[in-house]
Amino acid sequence: MWNKNVVDFMGCDAAYEEADIVLFGAPFDSTTSFRPGTRFAGQAIRNDSYGLETYSPYQDRDLTEKRIFDCGDLELSIGNAQMVLEQIEACAKQILTDGKLPFMIGGEHLVTLGSVRAVSRKYPDMHIIHFDAHTDLRQDYLGVELSHACVLRRCWEILGDGRIHQFGIRSGEKEEFEWAKQGHTDLHPFNLEGLEQTIEKLKGKPVYFTVDLDVLDPSFFPGTGTPEPGGIAFMSLMHAVTKVCGQTNLVGCDVNELCPGYDQSGGSTAVACKIIREMLIAL
Amino acid sequence: MWNKNVVDFMGCDAAYEEADIVLFGAPFDSTTSFRPGTRFAGQAIRNDSYGLETYSPYQDRDLTEKRIFDCGDLELSIGNAQMVLEQIEACAKQILTDGKLPFMIGGEHLVTLGSVRAVSRKYPDMHIIHFDAHTDLRQDYLGVELSHACVLRRCWEILGDGRIHQFGIRSGEKEEFEWAKQGHTDLHPFNLEGLEQTIEKLKGKPVYFTVDLDVLDPSFFPGTGTPEPGGIAFMSLMHAVTKVCGQTNLVGCDVNELCPGYDQSGGSTAVACKIIREMLIAL
Amino acid sequence: MWNKNVVDFMGCDAAYEEADIVLFGAPFDSTTSFRPGTRFAGQAIRNDSYGLETYSPYQDRDLTEKRIFDCGDLELSIGNAQMVLEQIEACAKQILTDGKLPFMIGGEHLVTLGSVRAVSRKYPDMHIIHFDAHTDLRQDYLGVELSHACVLRRCWEILGDGRIHQFGIRSGEKEEFEWAKQGHTDLHPFNLEGLEQTIEKLKGKPVYFTVDLDVLDPSFFPGTGTPEPGGIAFMSLMHAVTKVCGQTNLVGCDVNELCPGYDQSGGSTAVACKIIREMLIAL
Amino acid sequence: MWNKNVVDFMGCDAAYEEADIVLFGAPFDSTTSFRPGTRFAGQAIRNDSYGLETYSPYQDRDLTEKRIFDCGDLELSIGNAQMVLEQIEACAKQILTDGKLPFMIGGEHLVTLGSVRAVSRKYPDMHIIHFDAHTDLRQDYLGVELSHACVLRRCWEILGDGRIHQFGIRSGEKEEFEWAKQGHTDLHPFNLEGLEQTIEKLKGKPVYFTVDLDVLDPSFFPGTGTPEPGGIAFMSLMHAVTKVCGQTNLVGCDVNELCPGYDQSGGSTAVACKIIREMLIAL
Amino acid sequence: MWNKNVVDFMGCDAAYEEADIVLFGAPFDSTTSFRPGTRFAGQAIRNDSYGLETYSPYQDRDLTEKRIFDCGDLELSIGNAQMVLEQIEACAKQILTDGKLPFMIGGEHLVTLGSVRAVSRKYPDMHIIHFDAHTDLRQDYLGVELSHACVLRRCWEILGDGRIHQFGIRSGEKEEFEWAKQGHTDLHPFNLEGLEQTIEKLKGKPVYFTVDLDVLDPSFFPGTGTPEPGGIAFMSLMHAVTKVCGQTNLVGCDVNELCPGYDQSGGSTAVACKIIREMLIAL
Amino acid sequence: MWNKNVVDFMGCDAAYEEADIVLFGAPFDSTTSFRPGTRFAGQAIRNDSYGLETYSPYQDRDLTEKRIFDCGDLELSIGNAQMVLEQIEACAKQILTDGKLPFMIGGEHLVTLGSVRAVSRKYPDMHIIHFDAHTDLRQDYLGVELSHACVLRRCWEILGDGRIHQFGIRSGEKEEFEWAKQGHTDLHPFNLEGLEQTIEKLKGKPVYFTVDLDVLDPSFFPGTGTPEPGGIAFMSLMHAVTKVCGQTNLVGCDVNELCPGYDQSGGSTAVACKIIREMLIAL
Repeated sequence: MWNKNVVDFMGCDAAYEEADIVLFGAPFDSTTSFRPGTRFAGQAIRNDSYGLETYSPYQDRDLTEKRIFDCGDLELSIGNAQMVLEQIEACAKQILTDGKLPFMIGGEHLVTLGSVRAVSRKYPDMHIIHFDAHTDLRQDYLGVELSHACVLRRCWEILGDGRIHQFGIRSGEKEEFEWAKQGHTDLHPFNLEGLEQTIEKLKGKPVYFTVDLDVLDPSFFPGTGTPEPGGIAFMSLMHAVTKVCGQTNLVGCDVNELCPGYDQSGGSTAVACKIIREMLIAL
Repeated sequence: MWNKNVVDFMGCDAAYEEADIVLFGAPFDSTTSFRPGTRFAGQAIRNDSYGLETYSPYQDRDLTEKRIFDCGDLELSIGNAQMVLEQIEACAKQILTDGKLPFMIGGEHLVTLGSVRAVSRKYPDMHIIHFDAHTDLRQDYLGVELSHACVLRRCWEILGDGRIHQFGIRSGEKEEFEWAKQGHTDLHPFNLEGLEQTIEKLKGKPVYFTVDLDVLDPSFFPGTGTPEPGGIAFMSLMHAVTKVCGQTNLVGCDVNELCPGYDQSGGSTAVACKIIREMLIAL
Repeated sequence: MWNKNVVDFMGCDAAYEEADIVLFGAPFDSTTSFRPGTRFAGQAIRNDSYGLETYSPYQDRDLTEKRIFDCGDLELSIGNAQMVLEQIEACAKQILTDGKLPFMIGGEHLVTLGSVRAVSRKYPDMHIIHFDAHTDLRQDYLGVELSHACVLRRCWEILGDGRIHQFGIRSGEKEEFEWAKQGHTDLHPFNLEGLEQTIEKLKGKPVYFTVDLDVLDPSFFPGTGTPEPGGIAFMSLMHAVTKVCGQTNLVGCDVNELCPGYDQSGGSTAVACKIIREMLIAL
Repeated sequence: MWNKNVVDFMGCDAAYEEADIVLFGAPFDSTTSFRPGTRFAGQAIRNDSYGLETYSPYQDRDLTEKRIFDCGDLELSIGNAQMVLEQIEACAKQILTDGKLPFMIGGEHLVTLGSVRAVSRKYPDMHIIHFDAHTDLRQDYLGVELSHACVLRRCWEILGDGRIHQFGIRSGEKEEFEWAKQGHTDLHPFNLEGLEQTIEKLKGKPVYFTVDLDVLDPSFFPGTGTPEPGGIAFMSLMHAVTKVCGQTNLVGCDVNELCPGYDQSGGSTAVACKIIREMLIAL
Repeated sequence: MWNKNVVDFMGCDAAYEEADIVLFGAPFDSTTSFRPGTRFAGQAIRNDSYGLETYSPYQDRDLTEKRIFDCGDLELSIGNAQMVLEQIEACAKQILTDGKLPFMIGGEHLVTLGSVRAVSRKYPDMHIIHFDAHTDLRQDYLGVELSHACVLRRCWEILGDGRIHQFGIRSGEKEEFEWAKQGHTDLHPFNLEGLEQTIEKLKGKPVYFTVDLDVLDPSFFPGTGTPEPGGIAFMSLMHAVTKVCGQTNLVGCDVNELCPGYDQSGGSTAVACKIIREMLIAL
Repeated sequence: MWNKNVVDFMGCDAAYEEADIVLFGAPFDSTTSFRPGTRFAGQAIRNDSYGLETYSPYQDRDLTEKRIFDCGDLELSIGNAQMVLEQIEACAKQILTDGKLPFMIGGEHLVTLGSVRAVSRKYPDMHIIHFDAHTDLRQDYLGVELSHACVLRRCWEILGDGRIHQFGIRSGEKEEFEWAKQGHTDLHPFNLEGLEQTIEKLKGKPVYFTVDLDVLDPSFFPGTGTPEPGGIAFMSLMHAVTKVCGQTNLVGCDVNELCPGYDQSGGSTAVACKIIREMLIAL
């Protein structure tokens, strides 16, 4: 009773030293172009995870079997994307140095860049598997290059052609789709078709997995800043993330773009919790 | 114009004496472990039913063809589960004594226990068909045995092994799933597979039907206290409840866990209304 | 910078004179029988369209390739249905006289009557393709004949038997369904089955297309006054409207019944925006 | 237990025949120019009144001491102002004929005209005491004369100069204020100053009392269609209505413009309930 | 960075051993008769406190100057009032035994009984200062004696006549007011008049202070289950709690009845945070 | 009818060339430390202004008598504070060069810095009158100097000691209050006391007026990111802004920190509209 009030993701109560996976929140949404608020995702996910169960009947395994440390949300320099990315990179770098897997909870999608910078330094030949409704391949957004709308383009600048595998994409400028088709990225529009082949091809290679939850249809996930009708179903996403986490050589990952304030029912936060639970169990 | 303001479920305006079915609300949610508010379900369902139609184009029949009495919500001793269960049991018992079918609108799922106590006394060989996202099979919840999380376990204590048929279950503790598998209940995970065979097997036997609406995916039914992504679709549920009500020897039933405050759109209340309409017509 | 603040649907910035299509809003909801608020649909659709893209990866075409003028919402005599219908009719008539296509954004469904009056005068042999959850075929609603619940009946009075093709219908009074079956309208219940044959049959004939967005299931479109569970999916609707707009001789159309206040997530407004975008591109 | 589910305003359970006061709801909002939804006021007020008490510690009297009948909401011809006003007038007329006091719950402010028509026929020399944020004195609103924005002007046409006493007015067109100042109405801007003198002057004369609840500041009453900052406090209103009801010869009254959907907290509905309770007790 | 994610009330980060005051949450609302949800108050207060400051310009002192431990919310046996009260009593007893002051954050008002039981055992001659909109003096509520509506009556059974000083009371049954007037409690209706004299009279005596935040007017505090218009202003409450905490011999206290879900603006949670901050600083 | 859909603040329809005042929106909130969303203030204010009146009965003057141009919201480089401030500065500079008064609608408070940079270049001896709940005087916030929490400190760096007059301040770090007291700013805590003397003292001097609407109590203005209970009343603010605008030599001003998403009732947007209307009329 006289312990301090620790709030972590359900079942993730290992000490840092003994953990294999480190969860951390990146509560940043300063470059969001439409409706901000993803900064509250980490808090909502931790709080509401207690309404769910640690046991997955899908995988017949329990989250408590894993050794996971949750350090909560980082204290980020809201309003300054450059500083924030450095703070995220430093955090991910330390986790990697300590031989653990960094698992980040956004925030908006730009936070992925901080983590990718750290992971790609350790694994320069890494690939990215990217689930999203949006291409995120712009050179800049109203002159801003460190923007959520440009994050995969920034990652491409680090990794080069053919290393980014995009799934579920259904929104972007014509130029972005065409730029992708020129071989810069491996873009699979609308749904997850081709994922199994991609997983097969990437066997043995280090993989960073970034999940923008708006890849889901807004019927399943209304709680996001830019709802894009026409997305995939929850069960498709759940099965897919289980495969990616269980069948590739994952070296880092993140789940982002939950904006809890836009879904008063809590259903979207529950979706995020379950996706994270299934990913953590499958890892 | 000078009649009192009677508010019943659309088309359910028979007098008690002439009715075959008696609708009553059980506005209780004191043991809800996560987010309360289901006590307002009955009121919301009655009020919003007037935005819908009494005619079902699915069954090509009209609710007004049936003789149904709606006594509104019971006045329950909020805060004391034991007293509340006795009040519900007394109500259901009287309905049964008068040769009518009790149809209860929850409230949280614990209310089922009150009705099951009454019905099982008249039909000791009865079976339960249970639609739910959750196992509800705990022995106790933080020491409390009269809890929504334990309600089917309490029913099992009355009925014994092999008498509870659970469908759509996708959340619970590992121990609950294992306890079920030991033959205590007939648990069908994730969806409604096996329902037709179960209906076939139960031909002639008295059946109590309890529908926790969170068996639906939160995309179809966000208005509930504990949204569990991964559920079934509205049309699946509608067809299934029509079958159970039309093809078994139903001796009592309930529909519960609508929490209208969590779905500002009213869509979840409309789901509850239509499920109830189709059940009533099919009976 | 010193231009006035023009707010139009994304990419629809042609001048009236050069436009082929004219978008106009009809912010009327005075006869709504359950929950009003569709008057704010036009404003919400224009404002939120800027969070989306003008490019359709489905059709691989961009809205900016079309010449579309958006005059905003009409200033209507709220509270007087007769005057409002005359105002809408006058607007549509002028657009037709100028050789352009009228594309109306409701408002409640009654506004369709104003537009149909104008279009049918120019194309007396026109047919209507009608997507909706509701029959809308009542003779009157509590004595009111100019009601959203009667709008297709009023259209039938203008066009006669066999000219109205209804899809997705799943709610209405028994009498309405029976009246339709007597050959007055061509009613396809529940979904869009038969649409391709209808399109085939109407080849060459002038077609007015009215889309009540509540044809969608409330999981995809909660933001409407009377949610009717059991509807079609977003992708089905999107493909269908693309076909109707691309493969018939469209002479007028409207999209109605978005009630943005009932979907705080903005998902329903995004659905409306994307349906309108796909329709405009396909025309 | 086997009585039908009667929902009336707390404590107002007299039979019509024995009642001195008759409460009825007028769920109409078709002419609302900004944000509709007042049609749900009556339902919300009755439902939420059960969370409050029938006893007034301010007046040290209990609502149950009075004989009041509540017939619920009238079934009105939504969408047709003329028919609706006739329906309201007929209801009020019957109540007056039976020697009872009509107490109407709106709805938008236009409903007052129906009641005033009936009451003024019985009491041609009656005065109106009018609490409101708005003048409501326009000749027409976008060509519509039967509009909430014109309702006091319509009443003036019946009663003539000097018979309408307006309090709390803080919004309107310049022309309306000037028209009032010409002696047509007795307009007290901003607050309730002068109310006691008015009550004094009207001693013995028949008085109709119409309370537009938006006379309150939106801090006290956010749940209304057109919030007008700068209004009076709840306690001022409560004391004032008690005086008007207790110290004038009241022959009819109404309370209108609660729009419950705009105040999720329920505070505005509680305000309406308490104002109505104090009025009823003071009568 | 590698510390666990501790979430406490801003600035209350002392260890238990060194603390003078112990904050604990009692997330219980099972007996709430109208709208539940106060169980989330503790969580909301801790989370949102970070948007505010630890420094009080009113008292020109900083919360960080005090030694306060916050153990978070107790894990209570939701649904069973008797067990919950025992759990709260045990917690408060231990704090008192360790020579610290128990400061509880509710939850509904019934939780006060658990704390009062513990404190009154140590200080049998203690008085209670009680701020509330409601009398809370019923013998039972629908047969339930352990109900929020009876909590001060239960306290009276422990302490006897003349020991409970109630302020701000404006709602209750006639019988409750009369029972109080018989000398059982010292009831000050409507506002805080007489508080300074009471403080004067209680000089030196042990005082338990219970603040039901609905003593505030709903304009200042809409986020509560049963809004009661006619309450006091925030600044009045803030000055009053500072006086009670600073000028009496306080031996225990609680702040309860925030229901964060009913005030989407967060203003009510901010009110609770500031009241708690000022109380803690003044102690 | 065939004009484009211009959306401006009610009555502000002058052309740029003929205007004396230029309204522009600065939809920026990237540095908001707690809850973002003020970027939507301009849009909400323009849209909802049509529910109000252009005539002020307080000043007995009409907004339409003034010549005001509204260019809508600037297109800002969301996510990059430095670029955004340059864009705002350029806009304000051009307005000043053309001899007009810049009137900015935020956004978060940082936007003031852009405008102050432009205005102070033209009027180096200018003073600032600052209404706010918060000091906004930090040197940096988590290392970020271009933050809303530092904006007045940045202005002080331009203007120097004794040039900033702060009113209504009730929240900040102890260090900020002490820094102010050293003579850097003229800080009036809690309310508007001393405003008339300040206006007197500044007679003839150029004054920039920045109104952070959270100076209001959250009861009057819940729609803001960081509600701070204990603020001033609407009528006090309205009278005060009228005085500042009417009795000083105003050379620029702004109104900021409305976050419309946090007040579903629309009351806060109405407050912003009325404050802006009264300021514009008084100028």
